[in-house]
Amino acid sequence: MALRAALRSRSGLSALLSQRSSCSSDIRMCVSPLLVPQQRNYSTPPKIRVEFDQSTGVAVMHMQSPPVNSLSLDFLTELCISVEKLEMDKSCRGLIITSAQPKVFSAGLDITEMYGKSPEHCGAFWRSVQEMWLKLYGSNMVTVAAINGSSPAGGCLMAMTCDYRIMADNPRYNIGLNETQLGIVAPFWFMDTMKNTVGQRTTEMALQLGLLYKPADALKIGLVDQLEPEDQVIAAATQTISRWLAIPDHARQITKSMMRKKTIDKLTSNRESDIQYFVNFITKDSIQKSLGGYMEMLKKRRA
Amino acid sequence: MALRAALRSRSGLSALLSQRSSCSSDIRMCVSPLLVPQQRNYSTPPKIRVEFDQSTGVAVMHMQSPPVNSLSLDFLTELCISVEKLEMDKSCRGLIITSAQPKVFSAGLDITEMYGKSPEHCGAFWRSVQEMWLKLYGSNMVTVAAINGSSPAGGCLMAMTCDYRIMADNPRYNIGLNETQLGIVAPFWFMDTMKNTVGQRTTEMALQLGLLYKPADALKIGLVDQLEPEDQVIAAATQTISRWLAIPDHARQITKSMMRKKTIDKLTSNRESDIQYFVNFITKDSIQKSLGGYMEMLKKRRA
Amino acid sequence: MALRAALRSRSGLSALLSQRSSCSSDIRMCVSPLLVPQQRNYSTPPKIRVEFDQSTGVAVMHMQSPPVNSLSLDFLTELCISVEKLEMDKSCRGLIITSAQPKVFSAGLDITEMYGKSPEHCGAFWRSVQEMWLKLYGSNMVTVAAINGSSPAGGCLMAMTCDYRIMADNPRYNIGLNETQLGIVAPFWFMDTMKNTVGQRTTEMALQLGLLYKPADALKIGLVDQLEPEDQVIAAATQTISRWLAIPDHARQITKSMMRKKTIDKLTSNRESDIQYFVNFITKDSIQKSLGGYMEMLKKRRA
Repeated sequence: MALRAALRSRSGLSALLSQRSSCSSDIRMCVSPLLVPQQRNYSTPPKIRVEFDQSTGVAVMHMQSPPVNSLSLDFLTELCISVEKLEMDKSCRGLIITSAQPKVFSAGLDITEMYGKSPEHCGAFWRSVQEMWLKLYGSNMVTVAAINGSSPAGGCLMAMTCDYRIMADNPRYNIGLNETQLGIVAPFWFMDTMKNTVGQRTTEMALQLGLLYKPADALKIGLVDQLEPEDQVIAAATQTISRWLAIPDHARQITKSMMRKKTIDKLTSNRESDIQYFVNFITKDSIQKSLGGYMEMLKKRRA
Repeated sequence: MALRAALRSRSGLSALLSQRSSCSSDIRMCVSPLLVPQQRNYSTPPKIRVEFDQSTGVAVMHMQSPPVNSLSLDFLTELCISVEKLEMDKSCRGLIITSAQPKVFSAGLDITEMYGKSPEHCGAFWRSVQEMWLKLYGSNMVTVAAINGSSPAGGCLMAMTCDYRIMADNPRYNIGLNETQLGIVAPFWFMDTMKNTVGQRTTEMALQLGLLYKPADALKIGLVDQLEPEDQVIAAATQTISRWLAIPDHARQITKSMMRKKTIDKLTSNRESDIQYFVNFITKDSIQKSLGGYMEMLKKRRA
Repeated sequence: MALRAALRSRSGLSALLSQRSSCSSDIRMCVSPLLVPQQRNYSTPPKIRVEFDQSTGVAVMHMQSPPVNSLSLDFLTELCISVEKLEMDKSCRGLIITSAQPKVFSAGLDITEMYGKSPEHCGAFWRSVQEMWLKLYGSNMVTVAAINGSSPAGGCLMAMTCDYRIMADNPRYNIGLNETQLGIVAPFWFMDTMKNTVGQRTTEMALQLGLLYKPADALKIGLVDQLEPEDQVIAAATQTISRWLAIPDHARQITKSMMRKKTIDKLTSNRESDIQYFVNFITKDSIQKSLGGYMEMLKKRRA
């Protein structure tokens, strides 16, 4: 099964692999078969664009999935493959994650992946969310989020996996884990990541209320580390990352790993039950109904 | 034994049950027999008065045990029964806890329950303190403390169990776990609750020194969330709770439960040994002596 | 072996024991034989000078190992013996730790103890670092760090073991765990101590970057508790400690022990593996090389 899946998707992977010419190694066998896109339309443009500057050792990952960089199964698969490629390239030491879409960093999990879908699909989707978190939160690279737009829910999670967060100082943007507002619950590893970032009490209140913070408030509680004018966010990220890269890699990596190990191990050793829990929860009639209502509301708002 | 105790106290429970006419369910069998008041003077007025607004789903619990809402066995038993009743009433979604006594929210544990009393009495008393904490910290309702007076020791603990704390902005009031000042030690679950509220370092210093904070300082360290003029504390609590109630109950409840589970489980699984530890500690001659000295000092201060 | 070592070093220990005449008890047998200085030059002046004020119950420990109070094996052994003596003297309730050297509190671990040394030596050295931490972090005394100079790495660790930290308000001084800057990694109990002091997020960033904070910044993140003009640091420490001593000892001690127990137990139960890990790490060619480079750099800077 796994092999067949791998063969089936070779062209897709190859297309991805050829994106960045400097990467000559064949990583196909390293990619978890569970992450292989199953029904991808291979004619769609890549959702992730990576610029790698060999001279600095820093890659910039532009998320470019219109309109709002929703974390779909395809998007997450591309993202994970991109991160894995960079992780294996020893010349790449730092990663800046940013958005190519206006006004939004990432709108979070793609609700269409969990609305009206089979339990199998929901499970595969959830595994890809876990994989994204595991890859980014456990990355050996220095990771900086250049948050040039709003970043709710899964978008906030992605930002929180990074070593440092710089947000555009635009009061129209916001960031936070707002799951409860949609009637769903941020899973334990979302919680843990937030606790590790802003502490127990702030997390407890933020998650219960599903709070979205304006940049200035996010800075105050430590959810982001720095604010910059919108057009200078990436430049500031580049400047910041150079400071982190002045530290010997191995010492910094071991330190990071020690600080995050307990949190990562908790998901790693509960991965299957977490998927099962998610699938059971999300496929409930009541939850499906509230997701449906939310999607209707979004449609109306756009119209 | 348990049954007999339950029968004996039926009239007392009935009296309590009839306090709020909107509650028609008979909860007598749900009440832990261990919490049943043993030697209560049934002619005393209720120590807890509950106002429930069916239209908002919010109950306000007024503590009215003169002079200072000391947490006696009787007081705690009434309080637990009241909370349990509200918890079982699905139309009640929020709870505001406040004081009907001037200048004090609650003065904390009633020292007379642990001075010169039998080990059995001390044990029953301690179980009721645990029960209060378990019921409030694990409540499915949104809980807001409207702290309209001083709130030392057990009073501070009660406030910390809530989801949100609003304190009267009166510099004569203070709040904190000041147990060490009396020569006693805040038990581990008091500590855990404070750590979850203000973090490890602040807790370590506050508990070692038995610090009582003025409202402005309590706000600074996050021991309370908001200050209001004294006559607007309850109004502010009502306003705050409506914001919390805008969140779907089940998502908020699961989130709260996940955030607090570990702390609650720790007491639940160590409840008997915690009682034993307390009884052994509090009945020591040296501790009894220092409690006696403290009571003398209080008497003199009042005179 | 242990006995012979104890006999061999008797004169050294005696010399130390006679330092403070008020201590009449013979603690020789209590001192871990592993901490006994092996090749000490007994003609060197004491590296630790203790002043004990019987009237206040407060001892002031002056670190006086020129030029920068490096934590060598000898230094740590003397320090541990001094602390142990004070700990066993019931009349001593508080300890202020400060430096007799200008501009520096302590420069941290003595690199010469780990550069070009045998694994056995490195292991004995590391055990003495652990011992210092265990003794100070678990002390029953009130401990206040009077940080009258820079305090990097092990110097910062020592300060963090105390109950309270007062730093000289001189922007030329700094404090922090800067291990990664030297290509080494702060071990888990350094991390835990820092997490307990400033929280997870600040620790994660501070340790990855090996940050050294100026006094004002250290105050902002809670790494120190108070700033004072340089010539008033010890006076302020004396004033602070009197406030802590107003609390009944046994209640404060139990509270402190409960707050720190988990962190201390973690090292106690992993002590040997932690030593093994350190020895394996520090004797690696690459690490030795980077230590060598660092020492060269220091030499040049001095010249």
